[in-house]
Amino acid sequence: MSTGRIYGVGLGPGDPDLMSVRADRLLRNARHIAFFRKPGRTGQARNIVRGMIPDDAVEFPMEYPVTTEIPVTDPRYNALLAAFYEDCAAHLRSLAERGEEVIVLCEGDPFFYGSFMHLYNRLRGDVEISIVPAITGMSGAWTATGDPITWGDDVLTVLMGTLPEDRLAERMAQTDALVVMKIGRNIEKVKRALKTAGLYQRAWIVEYAQMPNQRVCKLSDDCDGITPYFSIIIVHGQGRRP
Amino acid sequence: MSTGRIYGVGLGPGDPDLMSVRADRLLRNARHIAFFRKPGRTGQARNIVRGMIPDDAVEFPMEYPVTTEIPVTDPRYNALLAAFYEDCAAHLRSLAERGEEVIVLCEGDPFFYGSFMHLYNRLRGDVEISIVPAITGMSGAWTATGDPITWGDDVLTVLMGTLPEDRLAERMAQTDALVVMKIGRNIEKVKRALKTAGLYQRAWIVEYAQMPNQRVCKLSDDCDGITPYFSIIIVHGQGRRP
Repeated sequence: MSTGRIYGVGLGPGDPDLMSVRADRLLRNARHIAFFRKPGRTGQARNIVRGMIPDDAVEFPMEYPVTTEIPVTDPRYNALLAAFYEDCAAHLRSLAERGEEVIVLCEGDPFFYGSFMHLYNRLRGDVEISIVPAITGMSGAWTATGDPITWGDDVLTVLMGTLPEDRLAERMAQTDALVVMKIGRNIEKVKRALKTAGLYQRAWIVEYAQMPNQRVCKLSDDCDGITPYFSIIIVHGQGRRP
Repeated sequence: MSTGRIYGVGLGPGDPDLMSVRADRLLRNARHIAFFRKPGRTGQARNIVRGMIPDDAVEFPMEYPVTTEIPVTDPRYNALLAAFYEDCAAHLRSLAERGEEVIVLCEGDPFFYGSFMHLYNRLRGDVEISIVPAITGMSGAWTATGDPITWGDDVLTVLMGTLPEDRLAERMAQTDALVVMKIGRNIEKVKRALKTAGLYQRAWIVEYAQMPNQRVCKLSDDCDGITPYFSIIIVHGQGRRP
Protein backbone atom coordinates (compact mmCIF):
# COMPACT_ATOMS: atom_id res chain seq x y z
CA MET A 1 0.00 0.00 0.00
CA SER A 2 1.11 3.54 -0.72
CA THR A 3 1.73 5.98 2.11
CA GLY A 4 -0.64 8.63 0.76
CA ARG A 5 -4.40 8.47 0.60
CA ILE A 6 -7.22 9.15 -1.83
CA TYR A 7 -10.45 10.58 -0.41
CA GLY A 8 -13.67 10.18 -2.36
CA VAL A 9 -15.56 13.07 -0.81
CA GLY A 10 -19.28 13.41 -1.43
CA LEU A 11 -20.35 17.05 -1.81
CA GLY A 12 -24.08 16.41 -1.44
CA PRO A 13 -26.73 18.03 -3.63
CA GLY A 14 -24.89 21.32 -4.11
CA ASP A 15 -25.35 23.61 -1.09
CA PRO A 16 -22.03 23.83 0.84
CA ASP A 17 -24.08 24.13 4.06
CA LEU A 18 -25.37 20.60 3.38
CA MET A 19 -21.91 19.03 3.15
CA SER A 20 -20.89 16.86 6.06
CA VAL A 21 -18.71 18.31 8.78
CA ARG A 22 -16.02 15.82 7.66
CA ALA A 23 -16.20 16.89 4.02
CA ASP A 24 -16.06 20.55 5.01
CA ARG A 25 -12.94 19.97 7.13
CA LEU A 26 -11.17 17.91 4.46
CA LEU A 27 -11.89 20.47 1.74
CA ARG A 28 -10.70 23.45 3.78
CA ASN A 29 -7.39 21.67 4.44
CA ALA A 30 -6.94 20.19 0.97
CA ARG A 31 -3.48 20.05 -0.64
CA HIS A 32 -4.59 18.25 -3.80
CA ILE A 33 -8.06 18.16 -5.31
CA ALA A 34 -9.25 16.26 -8.39
CA PHE A 35 -12.61 16.60 -10.11
CA PHE A 36 -14.44 15.62 -13.28
CA ARG A 37 -15.70 18.16 -15.78
CA LYS A 38 -16.57 18.65 -19.42
CA PRO A 39 -13.74 20.25 -21.43
CA GLY A 40 -13.96 24.03 -21.36
CA ARG A 41 -16.23 24.15 -18.29
CA THR A 42 -15.46 24.93 -14.65
CA GLY A 43 -17.38 21.82 -13.69
CA GLN A 44 -20.32 21.46 -11.31
CA ALA A 45 -18.26 19.81 -8.53
CA ARG A 46 -15.57 22.50 -8.66
CA ASN A 47 -18.26 25.19 -8.59
CA ILE A 48 -19.82 23.79 -5.45
CA VAL A 49 -16.58 24.12 -3.44
CA ARG A 50 -15.82 27.64 -4.65
CA GLY A 51 -14.21 29.64 -1.83
CA MET A 52 -13.52 26.53 0.30
CA ILE A 53 -10.28 25.22 -1.22
CA PRO A 54 -6.96 26.71 -0.02
CA ASP A 55 -5.37 28.97 -2.66
CA ASP A 56 -2.20 26.88 -2.82
CA ALA A 57 -3.98 23.55 -3.35
CA VAL A 58 -2.99 21.72 -6.54
CA GLU A 59 -5.94 21.10 -8.84
CA PHE A 60 -6.29 18.14 -11.19
CA PRO A 61 -9.28 18.58 -13.52
CA MET A 62 -10.28 15.31 -15.18
CA GLU A 63 -11.93 16.18 -18.49
CA TYR A 64 -14.33 13.62 -19.96
CA PRO A 65 -13.17 12.68 -23.48
CA VAL A 66 -16.80 12.11 -24.48
CA THR A 67 -20.19 12.79 -22.93
CA THR A 68 -23.15 12.45 -25.27
CA GLU A 69 -21.48 12.70 -28.71
CA ILE A 70 -21.17 8.91 -28.91
CA PRO A 71 -24.03 6.68 -27.69
CA VAL A 72 -23.17 4.51 -24.69
CA THR A 73 -24.02 1.43 -26.72
CA ASP A 74 -21.14 2.15 -29.15
CA PRO A 75 -18.05 0.09 -28.20
CA ARG A 76 -15.89 3.19 -28.80
CA TYR A 77 -17.67 4.94 -25.92
CA ASN A 78 -16.60 2.26 -23.49
CA ALA A 79 -13.02 2.12 -24.85
CA LEU A 80 -12.57 5.90 -24.67
CA LEU A 81 -13.91 6.12 -21.14
CA ALA A 82 -11.89 3.14 -19.93
CA ALA A 83 -8.66 4.72 -21.22
CA PHE A 84 -9.62 8.03 -19.61
CA TYR A 85 -10.30 6.46 -16.21
CA GLU A 86 -7.00 4.53 -16.46
CA ASP A 87 -5.10 7.78 -17.07
CA CYS A 88 -6.79 9.57 -14.19
CA ALA A 89 -6.23 6.64 -11.84
CA ALA A 90 -2.55 6.46 -12.81
CA HIS A 91 -2.06 10.12 -11.90
CA LEU A 92 -3.82 9.73 -8.55
CA ARG A 93 -1.83 6.56 -7.84
CA SER A 94 1.44 8.37 -8.50
CA LEU A 95 0.45 11.16 -6.09
CA ALA A 96 -0.47 8.66 -3.39
CA GLU A 97 2.81 6.80 -3.93
CA ARG A 98 4.63 10.08 -3.22
CA GLY A 99 2.75 10.25 0.09
CA GLU A 100 0.23 12.89 -0.96
CA GLU A 101 -3.38 13.07 0.12
CA VAL A 102 -5.77 13.77 -2.73
CA ILE A 103 -9.42 14.72 -2.41
CA VAL A 104 -11.62 13.67 -5.30
CA LEU A 105 -14.75 15.84 -5.43
CA CYS A 106 -17.91 13.79 -5.95
CA GLU A 107 -21.31 15.33 -6.65
CA GLY A 108 -23.96 13.69 -4.45
CA ASP A 109 -22.84 10.47 -2.75
CA PRO A 110 -19.63 8.83 -4.08
CA PHE A 111 -21.04 5.27 -4.21
CA PHE A 112 -24.39 6.16 -5.79
CA TYR A 113 -24.18 6.32 -9.62
CA GLY A 114 -20.96 8.35 -9.58
CA SER A 115 -17.92 8.64 -11.85
CA PHE A 116 -15.51 8.31 -8.93
CA MET A 117 -16.44 4.64 -8.60
CA HIS A 118 -14.56 3.94 -11.84
CA LEU A 119 -11.37 5.34 -10.27
CA TYR A 120 -12.08 3.57 -7.01
CA ASN A 121 -12.26 0.18 -8.69
CA ARG A 122 -8.91 0.79 -10.41
CA LEU A 123 -7.11 2.04 -7.28
CA ARG A 124 -8.43 -0.18 -4.52
CA GLY A 125 -5.79 -2.60 -3.29
CA ASP A 126 -2.93 -0.29 -4.40
CA VAL A 127 -3.83 2.86 -2.52
CA GLU A 128 -5.51 3.69 0.79
CA ILE A 129 -8.93 5.11 -0.04
CA SER A 130 -11.46 6.73 2.28
CA ILE A 131 -15.04 7.34 1.22
CA VAL A 132 -17.04 10.18 2.75
CA PRO A 133 -20.73 9.52 2.08
CA ALA A 134 -23.03 12.46 1.43
CA ILE A 135 -26.59 13.60 1.02
CA THR A 136 -27.76 12.28 -2.33
CA GLY A 137 -29.12 14.56 -5.02
CA MET A 138 -32.43 12.72 -4.78
CA SER A 139 -32.67 13.51 -1.07
CA GLY A 140 -32.08 17.17 -1.90
CA ALA A 141 -34.83 16.92 -4.52
CA TRP A 142 -37.53 15.31 -2.39
CA THR A 143 -36.78 17.75 0.43
CA ALA A 144 -37.28 20.58 -2.07
CA THR A 145 -40.78 19.34 -2.95
CA GLY A 146 -41.87 19.86 0.66
CA ASP A 147 -43.39 16.37 0.87
CA PRO A 148 -41.92 13.18 2.35
CA ILE A 149 -40.92 10.60 -0.25
CA THR A 150 -41.78 7.36 1.58
CA TRP A 151 -44.21 6.32 4.32
CA GLY A 152 -44.78 3.05 6.18
CA ASP A 153 -44.04 0.08 3.91
CA ASP A 154 -43.72 2.08 0.68
CA VAL A 155 -41.47 0.57 -1.99
CA LEU A 156 -39.03 3.12 -3.42
CA THR A 157 -37.62 2.57 -6.91
CA VAL A 158 -34.78 4.61 -8.41
CA LEU A 159 -34.60 4.56 -12.21
CA MET A 160 -32.23 6.07 -14.76
CA GLY A 161 -33.89 7.89 -17.65
CA THR A 162 -31.46 6.10 -19.97
CA LEU A 163 -33.41 2.82 -19.64
CA PRO A 164 -35.72 1.69 -22.49
CA GLU A 165 -39.24 3.11 -22.32
CA ASP A 166 -41.00 -0.21 -21.77
CA ARG A 167 -38.72 -1.11 -18.88
CA LEU A 168 -39.21 2.34 -17.33
CA ALA A 169 -43.01 2.06 -17.57
CA GLU A 170 -43.00 -1.49 -16.18
CA ARG A 171 -40.92 -0.55 -13.14
CA MET A 172 -42.87 2.67 -12.56
CA ALA A 173 -46.16 0.75 -12.51
CA GLN A 174 -44.90 -1.51 -9.72
CA THR A 175 -43.56 1.01 -7.22
CA ASP A 176 -45.10 3.23 -4.56
CA ALA A 177 -42.50 6.01 -4.58
CA LEU A 178 -40.25 6.86 -7.50
CA VAL A 179 -37.07 8.77 -8.32
CA VAL A 180 -35.88 9.21 -11.90
CA MET A 181 -32.41 10.57 -12.59
CA LYS A 182 -30.22 11.01 -15.70
CA ILE A 183 -33.15 12.65 -17.42
CA GLY A 184 -31.49 15.05 -19.88
CA ARG A 185 -32.45 14.19 -23.46
CA ASN A 186 -34.58 11.31 -22.15
CA ILE A 187 -37.24 13.65 -20.76
CA GLU A 188 -39.93 12.95 -23.38
CA LYS A 189 -39.43 9.19 -23.07
CA VAL A 190 -39.64 9.45 -19.27
CA LYS A 191 -42.85 11.49 -19.51
CA ARG A 192 -44.44 8.89 -21.80
CA ALA A 193 -43.45 6.10 -19.42
CA LEU A 194 -44.93 8.03 -16.46
CA LYS A 195 -48.21 8.39 -18.40
CA THR A 196 -48.27 4.67 -19.28
CA ALA A 197 -47.71 3.83 -15.60
CA GLY A 198 -50.40 6.26 -14.43
CA LEU A 199 -47.95 8.38 -12.41
CA TYR A 200 -47.68 11.48 -14.60
CA GLN A 201 -50.18 13.56 -12.63
CA ARG A 202 -48.32 12.88 -9.37
CA ALA A 203 -44.82 13.59 -10.71
CA TRP A 204 -42.66 16.56 -9.75
CA ILE A 205 -39.49 17.81 -11.39
CA VAL A 206 -36.78 19.51 -9.34
CA GLU A 207 -34.01 21.40 -11.10
CA TYR A 208 -30.78 22.30 -9.29
CA ALA A 209 -32.06 20.92 -5.97
CA GLN A 210 -30.73 22.82 -2.93
CA MET A 211 -28.88 25.36 -5.10
CA PRO A 212 -29.64 29.09 -5.42
CA ASN A 213 -31.28 28.50 -8.82
CA GLN A 214 -33.49 25.63 -7.53
CA ARG A 215 -36.85 25.19 -9.25
CA VAL A 216 -39.66 22.85 -8.22
CA CYS A 217 -42.60 22.17 -10.50
CA LYS A 218 -45.35 19.62 -11.11
CA LEU A 219 -44.43 17.89 -14.33
CA SER A 220 -48.00 18.28 -15.65
CA ASP A 221 -47.76 22.07 -15.21
CA ASP A 222 -45.48 22.33 -18.26
CA CYS A 223 -42.86 24.19 -16.25
CA ASP A 224 -41.67 27.15 -18.27
CA GLY A 225 -38.02 26.97 -19.18
CA ILE A 226 -37.09 24.15 -16.85
CA THR A 227 -34.21 22.17 -18.34
CA PRO A 228 -33.89 18.49 -17.63
CA TYR A 229 -30.08 18.27 -17.46
CA PHE A 230 -29.70 18.88 -13.74
CA SER A 231 -33.16 17.69 -12.82
CA ILE A 232 -34.63 14.82 -10.83
CA ILE A 233 -38.19 13.53 -11.09
CA ILE A 234 -40.00 12.59 -7.88
CA VAL A 235 -43.24 10.71 -7.26
CA HIS A 236 -44.17 10.56 -3.56
CA GLY A 237 -45.32 7.38 -1.85
CA GLN A 238 -48.79 7.22 -0.32
CA GLY A 239 -48.11 4.71 2.46
CA ARG A 240 -49.50 4.28 5.97
CA ARG A 241 -49.65 7.44 8.07
CA PRO A 242 -51.31 7.23 11.50
CA MET B 1 -48.37 31.46 10.76
CA SER B 2 -46.65 31.38 14.15
CA THR B 3 -43.56 33.48 14.76
CA GLY B 4 -41.43 30.53 15.91
CA ARG B 5 -40.12 27.72 13.78
CA ILE B 6 -39.83 23.94 13.83
CA TYR B 7 -36.69 22.39 12.32
CA GLY B 8 -36.77 18.77 11.20
CA VAL B 9 -33.04 18.11 11.36
CA GLY B 10 -31.64 14.94 9.81
CA LEU B 11 -28.79 13.51 11.88
CA GLY B 12 -27.54 11.12 9.20
CA PRO B 13 -26.50 7.51 9.87
CA GLY B 14 -25.10 8.16 13.36
CA ASP B 15 -21.58 9.61 13.21
CA PRO B 16 -21.70 13.31 14.25
CA ASP B 17 -18.87 13.95 11.77
CA LEU B 18 -21.29 12.97 8.99
CA MET B 19 -23.95 15.50 9.95
CA SER B 20 -24.32 18.45 7.64
CA VAL B 21 -22.65 21.72 8.52
CA ARG B 22 -26.14 23.19 8.86
CA ALA B 23 -27.33 20.48 11.26
CA ASP B 24 -24.16 20.84 13.34
CA ARG B 25 -24.66 24.61 13.66
CA LEU B 26 -28.36 24.33 14.53
CA LEU B 27 -27.73 21.67 17.18
CA ARG B 28 -24.90 23.58 18.87
CA ASN B 29 -27.18 26.63 19.18
CA ALA B 30 -30.36 24.78 20.11
CA ARG B 31 -32.73 26.23 22.73
CA HIS B 32 -35.38 23.47 22.42
CA ILE B 33 -34.88 19.95 21.16
CA ALA B 34 -37.49 17.22 20.69
CA PHE B 35 -36.84 13.56 19.88
CA PHE B 36 -38.59 10.20 19.74
CA ARG B 37 -37.62 7.30 21.97
CA LYS B 38 -38.94 4.16 23.57
CA PRO B 39 -40.02 4.66 27.20
CA GLY B 40 -37.15 4.12 29.60
CA ARG B 41 -34.45 4.54 26.94
CA THR B 42 -32.16 7.47 26.14
CA GLY B 43 -33.10 7.08 22.49
CA GLN B 44 -30.85 6.61 19.46
CA ALA B 45 -31.35 10.16 18.15
CA ARG B 46 -30.55 11.73 21.54
CA ASN B 47 -27.47 9.49 21.83
CA ILE B 48 -26.11 10.65 18.48
CA VAL B 49 -26.06 14.33 19.53
CA ARG B 50 -24.49 13.68 22.95
CA GLY B 51 -22.11 16.53 23.81
CA MET B 52 -23.46 18.81 21.08
CA ILE B 53 -26.56 20.29 22.72
CA PRO B 54 -26.17 23.36 25.00
CA ASP B 55 -26.64 22.47 28.68
CA ASP B 56 -29.51 24.91 29.10
CA ALA B 57 -31.51 23.62 26.12
CA VAL B 58 -35.00 22.40 26.99
CA GLU B 59 -35.56 18.77 26.03
CA PHE B 60 -38.88 17.25 24.96
CA PRO B 61 -38.64 13.46 24.73
CA MET B 62 -41.55 11.98 22.76
CA GLU B 63 -42.08 8.43 24.02
CA TYR B 64 -43.80 5.98 21.68
CA PRO B 65 -46.91 4.56 23.38
CA VAL B 66 -46.41 1.30 21.46
CA THR B 67 -43.67 -0.19 19.30
CA THR B 68 -44.03 -3.89 18.54
CA GLU B 69 -46.45 -5.03 21.30
CA ILE B 70 -49.45 -4.49 19.00
CA PRO B 71 -49.24 -5.50 15.30
CA VAL B 72 -49.46 -2.59 12.86
CA THR B 73 -52.50 -4.24 11.27
CA ASP B 74 -54.47 -3.88 14.54
CA PRO B 75 -56.68 -0.74 14.42
CA ARG B 76 -55.65 0.05 18.00
CA TYR B 77 -52.06 0.52 16.80
CA ASN B 78 -53.09 3.24 14.41
CA ALA B 79 -55.37 4.94 16.95
CA LEU B 80 -52.72 4.96 19.68
CA LEU B 81 -50.05 6.35 17.38
CA ALA B 82 -52.37 8.98 15.89
CA ALA B 83 -53.24 10.27 19.38
CA PHE B 84 -49.56 10.27 20.32
CA TYR B 85 -48.55 12.28 17.24
CA GLU B 86 -51.41 14.72 17.89
CA ASP B 87 -50.17 15.32 21.44
CA CYS B 88 -46.57 15.83 20.32
CA ALA B 89 -47.62 18.16 17.51
CA ALA B 90 -49.79 20.20 19.91
CA HIS B 91 -46.82 20.75 22.22
CA LEU B 92 -44.53 21.78 19.35
CA ARG B 93 -47.24 24.07 17.98
CA SER B 94 -47.59 25.81 21.35
CA LEU B 95 -43.84 26.39 21.53
CA ALA B 96 -43.78 27.84 18.01
CA GLU B 97 -46.76 30.08 18.85
CA ARG B 98 -44.72 31.51 21.72
CA GLY B 99 -41.99 32.36 19.20
CA GLU B 100 -39.63 29.54 20.09
CA GLU B 101 -37.44 27.61 17.68
CA VAL B 102 -37.55 23.85 18.20
CA ILE B 103 -35.20 21.31 16.66
CA VAL B 104 -36.69 17.87 16.13
CA LEU B 105 -33.92 15.26 15.93
CA CYS B 106 -34.44 12.84 13.03
CA GLU B 107 -32.33 9.73 12.51
CA GLY B 108 -31.23 9.47 8.88
CA ASP B 109 -33.08 11.81 6.50
CA PRO B 110 -36.30 13.44 7.81
CA PHE B 111 -38.39 12.74 4.67
CA PHE B 112 -37.28 9.12 4.18
CA TYR B 113 -39.39 6.67 6.26
CA GLY B 114 -39.17 8.80 9.40
CA SER B 115 -41.45 9.44 12.38
CA PHE B 116 -41.03 13.20 12.08
CA MET B 117 -43.15 13.17 8.92
CA HIS B 118 -46.22 12.43 11.06
CA LEU B 119 -45.62 15.64 13.03
CA TYR B 120 -44.80 17.55 9.85
CA ASN B 121 -48.14 16.66 8.26
CA ARG B 122 -49.97 17.86 11.38
CA LEU B 123 -48.06 21.14 11.71
CA ARG B 124 -47.62 22.32 8.13
CA GLY B 125 -49.75 25.33 7.38
CA ASP B 126 -49.86 26.40 11.06
CA VAL B 127 -46.16 26.65 11.79
CA GLU B 128 -43.04 27.58 9.83
CA ILE B 129 -41.08 24.38 9.28
CA SER B 130 -37.59 23.92 7.84
CA ILE B 131 -36.30 20.52 6.78
CA VAL B 132 -32.57 19.78 6.87
CA PRO B 133 -31.93 16.72 4.68
CA ALA B 134 -29.24 14.28 5.72
CA ILE B 135 -27.20 11.27 4.72
CA THR B 136 -29.56 8.30 4.79
CA GLY B 137 -28.82 5.23 6.87
CA MET B 138 -28.69 3.20 3.65
CA SER B 139 -25.96 5.45 2.27
CA GLY B 140 -24.01 4.90 5.49
CA ALA B 141 -24.54 1.15 5.05
CA TRP B 142 -23.43 0.82 1.43
CA THR B 143 -20.39 3.00 2.13
CA ALA B 144 -19.53 0.61 4.99
CA THR B 145 -19.50 -2.39 2.62
CA GLY B 146 -16.67 -0.78 0.62
CA ASP B 147 -18.50 -1.34 -2.68
CA PRO B 148 -20.59 1.08 -4.73
CA ILE B 149 -24.32 0.34 -4.65
CA THR B 150 -25.30 1.33 -8.22
CA TRP B 151 -23.54 1.54 -11.61
CA GLY B 152 -24.66 2.76 -15.03
CA ASP B 153 -28.37 2.08 -15.53
CA ASP B 154 -28.85 -0.10 -12.44
CA VAL B 155 -32.33 -0.09 -10.93
CA LEU B 156 -32.27 0.43 -7.15
CA THR B 157 -35.17 -0.85 -5.06
CA VAL B 158 -35.67 -0.03 -1.38
CA LEU B 159 -37.90 -2.46 0.53
CA MET B 160 -39.18 -2.64 4.09
CA GLY B 161 -38.78 -6.03 5.78
CA THR B 162 -42.34 -5.63 7.06
CA LEU B 163 -43.77 -6.44 3.60
CA PRO B 164 -45.24 -9.92 2.92
CA GLU B 165 -42.70 -12.52 1.85
CA ASP B 166 -44.08 -13.06 -1.66
CA ARG B 167 -44.06 -9.33 -2.39
CA LEU B 168 -40.49 -9.03 -1.08
CA ALA B 169 -39.30 -11.93 -3.26
CA GLU B 170 -41.09 -10.58 -6.33
CA ARG B 171 -39.57 -7.11 -6.00
CA MET B 172 -36.12 -8.50 -5.19
CA ALA B 173 -36.16 -10.65 -8.33
CA GLN B 174 -36.76 -7.59 -10.51
CA THR B 175 -34.08 -5.22 -9.28
CA ASP B 176 -30.37 -4.77 -9.91
CA ALA B 177 -29.41 -3.22 -6.57
CA LEU B 178 -31.32 -3.66 -3.33
CA VAL B 179 -31.66 -2.11 0.11
CA VAL B 180 -33.82 -3.74 2.81
CA MET B 181 -34.61 -1.82 5.99
CA LYS B 182 -36.92 -2.38 9.02
CA ILE B 183 -35.49 -5.87 9.32
CA GLY B 184 -35.80 -6.62 13.06
CA ARG B 185 -38.01 -9.62 13.66
CA ASN B 186 -38.51 -9.97 9.91
CA ILE B 187 -34.96 -11.22 9.34
CA GLU B 188 -35.83 -14.88 8.62
CA LYS B 189 -38.59 -13.88 6.20
CA VAL B 190 -36.23 -11.48 4.44
CA LYS B 191 -33.58 -14.21 4.14
CA ARG B 192 -36.09 -16.63 2.60
CA ALA B 193 -37.19 -13.97 0.11
CA LEU B 194 -33.56 -13.26 -0.83
CA LYS B 195 -33.04 -16.98 -1.48
CA THR B 196 -36.21 -17.20 -3.59
CA ALA B 197 -35.00 -14.21 -5.63
CA GLY B 198 -31.49 -15.66 -6.04
CA LEU B 199 -29.83 -12.75 -4.22
CA TYR B 200 -28.90 -14.39 -0.92
CA GLN B 201 -25.27 -15.11 -1.83
CA ARG B 202 -24.71 -11.47 -2.85
CA ALA B 203 -26.36 -9.91 0.24
CA TRP B 204 -24.54 -8.03 2.98
CA ILE B 205 -25.83 -6.99 6.37
CA VAL B 206 -24.55 -3.82 8.04
CA GLU B 207 -25.26 -3.22 11.71
CA TYR B 208 -24.90 0.26 13.25
CA ALA B 209 -23.55 1.73 9.99
CA GLN B 210 -21.03 4.56 10.55
CA MET B 211 -21.12 4.14 14.34
CA PRO B 212 -18.29 2.95 16.60
CA ASN B 213 -19.91 -0.49 16.92
CA GLN B 214 -20.43 -0.89 13.14
CA ARG B 215 -20.35 -4.46 11.80
CA VAL B 216 -20.33 -5.53 8.16
CA CYS B 217 -20.90 -9.13 7.18
CA LYS B 218 -21.99 -11.24 4.20
CA LEU B 219 -25.40 -12.59 5.10
CA SER B 220 -24.39 -16.11 4.00
CA ASP B 221 -21.49 -16.07 6.48
CA ASP B 222 -23.91 -16.50 9.41
CA CYS B 223 -22.50 -13.45 11.17
CA ASP B 224 -21.97 -14.33 14.80
CA GLY B 225 -24.07 -12.24 17.16
CA ILE B 226 -25.19 -9.66 14.63
CA THR B 227 -28.62 -8.38 15.59
CA PRO B 228 -31.05 -7.22 12.95
CA TYR B 229 -32.64 -4.33 14.86
CA PHE B 230 -30.29 -1.58 13.69
CA SER B 231 -29.26 -3.35 10.49
CA ILE B 232 -29.65 -2.73 6.79
CA ILE B 233 -29.30 -5.35 4.06
CA ILE B 234 -27.47 -4.37 0.88
CA VAL B 235 -27.18 -6.11 -2.51
CA HIS B 236 -24.86 -4.26 -4.89
CA GLY B 237 -25.75 -3.58 -8.51
CA GLN B 238 -23.63 -5.03 -11.29
CA GLY B 239 -24.17 -2.37 -13.97
CA ARG B 240 -21.99 -0.95 -16.72
CA ARG B 241 -18.47 0.00 -15.68
CA PRO B 242 -16.04 1.11 -18.40
